[in-house]
Amino acid sequence: MNYPNNKKKEDLKINYSNRGMNLENDLNDTNNYYLQNHIAVIHKKPTPITIVSVDYKSRKDAVIKEAYFKTPSTTDYNGIYKGKYIDFEAKETKNKIGFPLINIHKHQLEHLKSIIEAGGIAFLIIRFTTYNETYLIEASKFLDYLQKYNKKTIPLKFFQEYGHILKEKYNPRLDYLTIIDKIFLKGNDNEK
Amino acid sequence: MNYPNNKKKEDLKINYSNRGMNLENDLNDTNNYYLQNHIAVIHKKPTPITIVSVDYKSRKDAVIKEAYFKTPSTTDYNGIYKGKYIDFEAKETKNKIGFPLINIHKHQLEHLKSIIEAGGIAFLIIRFTTYNETYLIEASKFLDYLQKYNKKTIPLKFFQEYGHILKEKYNPRLDYLTIIDKIFLKGNDNEK
Repeated sequence: MNYPNNKKKEDLKINYSNRGMNLENDLNDTNNYYLQNHIAVIHKKPTPITIVSVDYKSRKDAVIKEAYFKTPSTTDYNGIYKGKYIDFEAKETKNKIGFPLINIHKHQLEHLKSIIEAGGIAFLIIRFTTYNETYLIEASKFLDYLQKYNKKTIPLKFFQEYGHILKEKYNPRLDYLTIIDKIFLKGNDNEK
Repeated sequence: MNYPNNKKKEDLKINYSNRGMNLENDLNDTNNYYLQNHIAVIHKKPTPITIVSVDYKSRKDAVIKEAYFKTPSTTDYNGIYKGKYIDFEAKETKNKIGFPLINIHKHQLEHLKSIIEAGGIAFLIIRFTTYNETYLIEASKFLDYLQKYNKKTIPLKFFQEYGHILKEKYNPRLDYLTIIDKIFLKGNDNEK
């Protein structure tokens, strides 16, 4: 098989935002592994933008000349695993004492609440880059905490106590579905 | 059947925002109705783009100065209904005799196949704007047809015979979930 060596547009992509990039790569690799191995179909949603101006040289070579980032109305990741609807948000923070809520939009929290009400599996994956520690936390516990304490930063201790640590492996990089099996699907392995 | 190949120049500078805009608006209204009434949580995914250059006046006022449209790797719509994972693509065509496959990317068809294999509910919503007729067709039937006949255009007749017509109403505009009840969830109303 021959692969042409011409540069793709994606190659030009610069890292416009370092925030969350490593966790995002880990999750994309993991989701790709799940897809290739027919374990789950979970994708990251594209970044929502508002397009203002487009230059059409031809249909294929349209260049967006002016656009703005939009506040996301849902989480970044969703899909299907063992017949169940899966939905989560993933964030990195450099903060040493906790997770600053400013990193998550109100709409995203409301979305997670809607998913819980609709019977879906909803959670968050939070990485503390200073310690290189990644936690999976059920959205219900996260939202309960917010309602109870109304804080601007959720302390690291909360994640250590109620979250599930995600160890990095070779393949899949960040095997979060084994945690989902334990906390959401225990004893339901044959459920459709 | 032979159709003249003289493509109009206007075809090259199609307004990307108008293409499918009416169907898209109808579906956004409908999904909003479903969300507000706690019937389903289904959202359209943002348009996938590759960002090349961003002008940061401030974090909030970042302006994207150069970006390109990416080929989508999944369908545009997904979410949860009655605990089930829902996934579909929606397209409009002006074509009078059928639906030209060029409107759907190979990756999107593969994605629909993955969703069927994973036990999700997968379908397409196709509107023939000339007749203002909108059909819901199960992805499995759509894919079966493609495999069997390998055509570049799927005839309108196929949709008339195997699809389900979606009548426009006041609210919700395009009540496609009642069709999903009939063809995917019949007799399973209490299923989780």
